[in-house]
Amino acid sequence: MSFSPLTLRLIESLTCLPGVGPKSAQRMALHLLDRDRVGAQKLADSLQLAMEKIGRCQRCRNFSEETVCHTCRQTSRDPALLCVVETPADVIAIDQSGSFRGYYFLLLGHLSPIDGIGPEDIGADVLDERLAEGEVKELVIATGTTVEGEATAHYLSEMARRHNVVASRIAHGVPMGGELEYVDSNTLSLALQGRKIL
Amino acid sequence: MSFSPLTLRLIESLTCLPGVGPKSAQRMALHLLDRDRVGAQKLADSLQLAMEKIGRCQRCRNFSEETVCHTCRQTSRDPALLCVVETPADVIAIDQSGSFRGYYFLLLGHLSPIDGIGPEDIGADVLDERLAEGEVKELVIATGTTVEGEATAHYLSEMARRHNVVASRIAHGVPMGGELEYVDSNTLSLALQGRKIL
Ligand SMILES: [Zn+2]
Ligand SMILES: [Zn+2]
Repeated sequence: MSFSPLTLRLIESLTCLPGVGPKSAQRMALHLLDRDRVGAQKLADSLQLAMEKIGRCQRCRNFSEETVCHTCRQTSRDPALLCVVETPADVIAIDQSGSFRGYYFLLLGHLSPIDGIGPEDIGADVLDERLAEGEVKELVIATGTTVEGEATAHYLSEMARRHNVVASRIAHGVPMGGELEYVDSNTLSLALQGRKIL
Repeated sequence: MSFSPLTLRLIESLTCLPGVGPKSAQRMALHLLDRDRVGAQKLADSLQLAMEKIGRCQRCRNFSEETVCHTCRQTSRDPALLCVVETPADVIAIDQSGSFRGYYFLLLGHLSPIDGIGPEDIGADVLDERLAEGEVKELVIATGTTVEGEATAHYLSEMARRHNVVASRIAHGVPMGGELEYVDSNTLSLALQGRKIL
């Protein structure tokens, strides 16, 4: 005896979710089958649509179903300021702090030679072109405070220097080794105000 | 700034999964978009197919894409023995103990007057018809060891009595208040061997 083929397939598919092992996947599948078929159908549709339509914004590399995302199209922002972050969640966290009114650029990771992640994998070429446009006057580097985040920050500050763009790093009000998205708005706000020219 | 509409929709849809709050849903969505689009597409397909095809087995009420499930179609089992459990996971756990060779009947819950769950909600009518067929000689009641599980067991033993079917309860080798699916095979095996006639 075991689950039916389609139930097994559903359980197996659910393990693609981070933090979901075989046992949780089983509970999730049975819950959906037994109690939330409407939610499951909605999830199937959302996944389908997301995978079909969501790509990366040409300007900031954030996930977006439009060629240029909503944030990059906002004209109320200061084009002289460009904040470099690692993830979409970081953008949300910084925007919620209310202390930054420029644009964003997403690395979607950080340099990590040991994992084979080089400059091209974090969109360094796209950022290079962006800085070459000449509009950006200050590159606010908000990569993580991990060893890789710091190495990435150093690499980006060198790039800024080559374009005569000021490079700044958000202040270490952010706890060392901490993840940006878990930092409260006040701390982030202070960290941004206390940023230092590199 | 926030996530794109389709990203937000995906995040929101993921919270239908048990144990997944807004923060985990966000991590899951970004993980899928960034690193596992193949897995996400597979999950979308599996969910779609599961919701479309998986119903309940007419005989045992287990989830199945067939009218009568694989287990109910096995002729190697003993038709005189019918084991009543609460969930599909319980069936798997008991079958893995190797100590039961009869058929199963799934309540998909237990009686809970306070939640408005009555006999018809746990398939008591279907079980009644099954017992009326006359093939079942012993009803092995393996509902949970919770108050509701015990009350359900009592209700089922009364039903068995009306059909002149012996009702037995698996022995309390199972820890009180414990969930059947987390009990190891040896304990379950002992509990089945030590079952008592009610
Ligand atoms: Zn953008
Ligand atoms: Zn069946």
